[in-house]
Amino acid sequence: MAIGTLVLIRHGESVWNAQNLFTGWVDVELSEKGVAEAARGGHLLREANLLPDIVHTSLQRRAISTANLALDAADRHWIPVKRDWRLNERHYGALQGKNKKQTLEEFGEEQFMLWRRSYDTPPPPIEKGSEFSQDGDPRYAGIEAPLTECLKDVVARVVPYWENEIVPDLKSGKNVLVAAHGNSLRALVKHLDGISDADIAGLNIPTGIPLRYDLDESAAPTTPGGLYLDPEAAAVAIAKVANQGR
Amino acid sequence: MAIGTLVLIRHGESVWNAQNLFTGWVDVELSEKGVAEAARGGHLLREANLLPDIVHTSLQRRAISTANLALDAADRHWIPVKRDWRLNERHYGALQGKNKKQTLEEFGEEQFMLWRRSYDTPPPPIEKGSEFSQDGDPRYAGIEAPLTECLKDVVARVVPYWENEIVPDLKSGKNVLVAAHGNSLRALVKHLDGISDADIAGLNIPTGIPLRYDLDESAAPTTPGGLYLDPEAAAVAIAKVANQGR
Repeated sequence: MAIGTLVLIRHGESVWNAQNLFTGWVDVELSEKGVAEAARGGHLLREANLLPDIVHTSLQRRAISTANLALDAADRHWIPVKRDWRLNERHYGALQGKNKKQTLEEFGEEQFMLWRRSYDTPPPPIEKGSEFSQDGDPRYAGIEAPLTECLKDVVARVVPYWENEIVPDLKSGKNVLVAAHGNSLRALVKHLDGISDADIAGLNIPTGIPLRYDLDESAAPTTPGGLYLDPEAAAVAIAKVANQGR
Repeated sequence: MAIGTLVLIRHGESVWNAQNLFTGWVDVELSEKGVAEAARGGHLLREANLLPDIVHTSLQRRAISTANLALDAADRHWIPVKRDWRLNERHYGALQGKNKKQTLEEFGEEQFMLWRRSYDTPPPPIEKGSEFSQDGDPRYAGIEAPLTECLKDVVARVVPYWENEIVPDLKSGKNVLVAAHGNSLRALVKHLDGISDADIAGLNIPTGIPLRYDLDESAAPTTPGGLYLDPEAAAVAIAKVANQGR
């Protein structure tokens, strides 16, 4: 059986993206714009006749809603669903809930970029019981939830999920949609495309535009970097993500 | 481990409910009112602190959307999901797409009520390839989809699903939400409450109001008939369902 096609979609704009806040594991909802982006993502899937047979999502509302809206628009609302915390956004530690611009001004360019884009420096851990911590959240009852993460930490949880949960679906011939987050998808793309720890800093993934990966039998990409279903919109959006906090 | 609680929810009003059309397996969407009903169902779950650990839905948009909206409102959007055609609405055969009032006028009260409420008389089968048939629908690729069904046929598919898929979740201590349809839920309630083939004709289930069943260790109801989370609204709505087509 031929291997399935992988499609990644970063959730549409959230209400905190719109306010330029660090979100991480805070479970915010999509903005009105994000809702429209998600539906448009589904229309792009439909136009490309790239129809998912199964969807994997994080445990976070913005990715779950994006999957629901995109699949509804693509007439694939009825496919099986798997959800896992390992597809969650990077935990932003004590920065969760803080404004990106204010953080940049308060801590300076160097520290800001270190937290945002260094591979292995996590922000300070979130205080247990503080406003934006995940203490007592029932969805994380079975795991030891992180208090902060760097991208390296995200890679360490995303790659095993890829290998153990997503690759078997692809190898059984299914087209797989992964609806997740800026950093969990960067972690996955780093692994797929063999991007170095240094170079991954320069990679940004736009919201709501499906990114298609065709794979060989070993589930390695045949077209490195994949193909955005709307390449022009992707290029504009990537430039915008890179400028966040400015 | 104590057995979980069962909660049934019939999808909110669909655009075809609003137009008084026989729907069956035609995959119509919720009306605006239906969207509001689904969210209210979620608020009722939350107020009752009756939080599902897993959701089972049909393969039909109106039940899937109802589950998504209700769970989002109850802050349980992240729970595992199972979908199965055996929770689908009764297939209405050649009546699919027809107006209920016109059908009543055309065929008369006796025939109309026989199709609508007799236990074992299905409507005429739908013609293959006709406008509202499910020919070629990829979600039914793995099964032999019915061309018409009476309630007895629905019982014959719902009860095995209950026993093999839902009861094990309940027995593992999970609270289970079942988001489904007027007739697939009537079939399940018939089985749960041991309602006779004759008496089930008089049972109607309102849209969007969660119906709670507490169960004993063998998954039999401890309170026959269950408990609606909003009993007054349920009573009003039940009377309204009974008068459809008038």
